[in-house]
Amino acid sequence: MIRIAIDCMGGDIGLPVTIPASIEFARRFPDARLLLVGLPDAIEKALAGSRDVPRDRLEILPASEVVTMDDSVEVALRRKKDSSMRIAAQAVKDGRADACVSAGNTGAWMAISRYVLKTLDGIDRPAIATSIPNQKGKSTTVLDLGANVDCSAEHLLQFAIMGTALAQALDHCERPSVGLLNIGEEVIKGNEVVKEAAELLRASRLNFHGNVEGNDIFKGTVDVVVCDGFVGNVVLKSIEGLARMLSSIIREEFKRNPITLLAGAIASPVLNRLRKRVDNRRYNGAALLGLRGVVIKSHGSADSYAFGFALQRAREAVASKLLERTNQSMAQIRQQGIPTNTYTNDAAITLPRAAGDSA
Amino acid sequence: MIRIAIDCMGGDIGLPVTIPASIEFARRFPDARLLLVGLPDAIEKALAGSRDVPRDRLEILPASEVVTMDDSVEVALRRKKDSSMRIAAQAVKDGRADACVSAGNTGAWMAISRYVLKTLDGIDRPAIATSIPNQKGKSTTVLDLGANVDCSAEHLLQFAIMGTALAQALDHCERPSVGLLNIGEEVIKGNEVVKEAAELLRASRLNFHGNVEGNDIFKGTVDVVVCDGFVGNVVLKSIEGLARMLSSIIREEFKRNPITLLAGAIASPVLNRLRKRVDNRRYNGAALLGLRGVVIKSHGSADSYAFGFALQRAREAVASKLLERTNQSMAQIRQQGIPTNTYTNDAAITLPRAAGDSA
Repeated sequence: MIRIAIDCMGGDIGLPVTIPASIEFARRFPDARLLLVGLPDAIEKALAGSRDVPRDRLEILPASEVVTMDDSVEVALRRKKDSSMRIAAQAVKDGRADACVSAGNTGAWMAISRYVLKTLDGIDRPAIATSIPNQKGKSTTVLDLGANVDCSAEHLLQFAIMGTALAQALDHCERPSVGLLNIGEEVIKGNEVVKEAAELLRASRLNFHGNVEGNDIFKGTVDVVVCDGFVGNVVLKSIEGLARMLSSIIREEFKRNPITLLAGAIASPVLNRLRKRVDNRRYNGAALLGLRGVVIKSHGSADSYAFGFALQRAREAVASKLLERTNQSMAQIRQQGIPTNTYTNDAAITLPRAAGDSA
Repeated sequence: MIRIAIDCMGGDIGLPVTIPASIEFARRFPDARLLLVGLPDAIEKALAGSRDVPRDRLEILPASEVVTMDDSVEVALRRKKDSSMRIAAQAVKDGRADACVSAGNTGAWMAISRYVLKTLDGIDRPAIATSIPNQKGKSTTVLDLGANVDCSAEHLLQFAIMGTALAQALDHCERPSVGLLNIGEEVIKGNEVVKEAAELLRASRLNFHGNVEGNDIFKGTVDVVVCDGFVGNVVLKSIEGLARMLSSIIREEFKRNPITLLAGAIASPVLNRLRKRVDNRRYNGAALLGLRGVVIKSHGSADSYAFGFALQRAREAVASKLLERTNQSMAQIRQQGIPTNTYTNDAAITLPRAAGDSA
């Protein structure tokens, strides 16, 4: 049995997305047991509208509050202590679930899961990782995507360890190759942190390929691309922006006049295949790595088809023992004597909070 | 008359690209006078193969050496003092040309043009800027694209000043809006440098819009997007990579079988229009900004059609008084009392070189 706690209230749409996706998922995976976290009445009502619900594997876990997409980390963490996000993470902490999934506010989800679950040994900061389809018909794991803006070389090494474990678990790469995102032929190759990180990576037992450039993400040069969260976030949003622009240009051109509409109708089987190949819903489900539990973040605007993929990633990460892999890899690298931590004082890694506040 | 010095030897292809493009350009713009810089015999030979050459406006400027695509900055700057790149930049320095263009090695072109021309008052470091087509059917000016990897807030302000002048000159925006590239909803919004830069920009007379995210480049939210060279380079290469992957997927799908080939043939007018709309050759010609001269960098793999656009950008920048605009804007912001410089000591901004070396 793989048990997943689902924040049913999160995301731009909430229950109308999470409940149908959960039912479909439970039907499809008989080894899955789902904890549906949120306002019990609302969940009951959403479930009541569906037929063939495998109720024996869908349990409602009540939560009285909901973190909105606009709530600050502060509000989410301190004022809403009975939120569906918090209860979902707590279920993992308490051993009632193996993984938790939310489509809610990224900052809040990261802060709550980190606060509740804590980080794995040797990990200073959790990171956000996703898979991006590449030209080889596989996918490239990229991290960090925005959890950490100012990173040290040791953080980049930690990302490489976590990304390697994720690619092993989700893409079944035995020995994933790791690239360090850097700039190319231009004047100065890389900043100081990146240069230092390359040295740590070269010394480690990871399968370090060397520096890669932005286009290597799509070439599929390596299995895992490591960068700081500022760069990763900007890259991810830029490519989303380009993809959106191109698809709107394609639509525009085929809708220009009756002749182009006809051409579009004739070409529609090809265009549909194309759409399917580049459908980013199939890549939904970023992993919040480095925590003592499997934590998945779905895109806020995911529909139930996309949300189902986030659930699948949670299931796969548990089944493939993501956390054990991360711990093993970290232990090996520490045995080599390579410095993995920036902070020696654990106090430095907890979220800042006011004196006397018990969050 | 607008006089442009062209490094005819640079780029992946060299003369077979630069000479036809130069001839075509001279024919099209009767106000242009071109200095063709390179090995005189080779240039003569390339010219001899063409008809209707406006020889009265094409002058050969001899250079005995060529900087290759693989030459280090060191070699380009110190060992090849009679390179076509160097002589082209020198022509601008000597007042024989108003602008210079090369498709050669970016690092070498930046180093040489900086060494020969020096930076404008108030500019610590030159930057590389390009135009990226956006959803509004216009283009977004993005800088820096890789000349500077570790930037201070003052550098980002300088980029904003230079980018504003470029958008005024090339896109004829009267008061270009400026966005600071940053990350979005995630845990921490922006690193320290970006936060500081936002304050400087807000205080300045520039039309500062605020923070923007990666997708805003394509939305056309602002006219100018400012970022450090590491981020800009990675973003630029990532979007090039995605565009290349998508176009190869489209080709693949239409070539799948006789039926899809037929569909492609029927849809070809639409596909051709599409190709034209996203043809990045029309955006060829990055500007090396902040120098005492108009310096343009063509893509190394540009064909003569693309190289022609780089020449047009050089002509337009001169005609629209890019340098005067940059100087004016810089003077205004200095008058406001906003710190624009990081270095007070001019020695810090010259390229590092060995003692006794006169480059």
